[in-house]
Amino acid sequence: MVVIGVDPGSLLTGYGVIRQEGADFQVLACGVIRLNPRRTHPERIGEIYRELDAVIGEHTPSRAAIETVFVSRNVQSALKLGQVRGSVIALAVNRKLELAEYAPREVKAAVTGRGSASKQQVAFMVRRMLQIRETPSTYDVTDALGIALCDLLKTGNGSTGAAHAPPDPGAGSRKKNWTDFVASRPDMIVR
Amino acid sequence: MVVIGVDPGSLLTGYGVIRQEGADFQVLACGVIRLNPRRTHPERIGEIYRELDAVIGEHTPSRAAIETVFVSRNVQSALKLGQVRGSVIALAVNRKLELAEYAPREVKAAVTGRGSASKQQVAFMVRRMLQIRETPSTYDVTDALGIALCDLLKTGNGSTGAAHAPPDPGAGSRKKNWTDFVASRPDMIVR
Repeated sequence: MVVIGVDPGSLLTGYGVIRQEGADFQVLACGVIRLNPRRTHPERIGEIYRELDAVIGEHTPSRAAIETVFVSRNVQSALKLGQVRGSVIALAVNRKLELAEYAPREVKAAVTGRGSASKQQVAFMVRRMLQIRETPSTYDVTDALGIALCDLLKTGNGSTGAAHAPPDPGAGSRKKNWTDFVASRPDMIVR
Repeated sequence: MVVIGVDPGSLLTGYGVIRQEGADFQVLACGVIRLNPRRTHPERIGEIYRELDAVIGEHTPSRAAIETVFVSRNVQSALKLGQVRGSVIALAVNRKLELAEYAPREVKAAVTGRGSASKQQVAFMVRRMLQIRETPSTYDVTDALGIALCDLLKTGNGSTGAAHAPPDPGAGSRKKNWTDFVASRPDMIVR
């Protein structure tokens, strides 16, 4: 299963495409779309659509995941962010991807085990789980990868839906229980 | 010149396509996309995109116009409306239409001559200018046609940009002054 996670913003939009096979995760693509603040808002919305459309065309995910937002700042920024999200949602629907939304707490809990984890902790666990050596330039990239991971952990290949839970033995997966699962993922053990 | 005006909403989205030739306006298409509130928000966003894409494919406008919104209710409704608008904006950009945004006051002033006109007054003038006999089912349709008319009056075929102003004689249009313009539009005179 291949999933694209997107963290939309009106200046920076992070994305990450992950393939899962059994308990193995492989990053197919990730990055951040930086928008020129001097371009008009519609131009930026068009650019996000085109760039993500190219990524989807290349890696053909079957699912897309974004975070549910709870904007508190003000109505105008909510409207602006909504417009960026609307373009991403329209793209996912046009590309016939299954779209899932996750609350920030769900993403953090799925990736780190704690709903109140910091961005740094999410970034740390995302890099560990995906064996990413280099430091991504912004948290937008690790956030997007975290959203894709959350979706895979909750829906992927017969897992139970709980964070880091061992795959359901009845669903034809290779790992049978926590011991096997942990043994297969030495990179996930923090010593 | 052909323009599509869109009045986006998360339940009702009005649209109107108008062709202008000289001082003549012709409605090529208009209607309202009613979204099933039981469908998910992403499904509705995808449906607006597809329906408007079909209208644009059929009537090939070169410009799109939407209203600038000033949402006051709350952040969540701003975000929702933003998402609908984002899908319309992405569509316009993808279709390579010139996109213009107008404040509600501008639309009202362009169509009725008064920035503080009511929806009823806008509907009345829109129907008169476009010689629409039947009563549209909701104001979303007349609002969308009003937005398209505003765009045509402000940018179209050498007009001066002022509401209902006579076309600029130097720009190759057929009407030379207010007298000719009024004489050519008996339907616009309120007796």
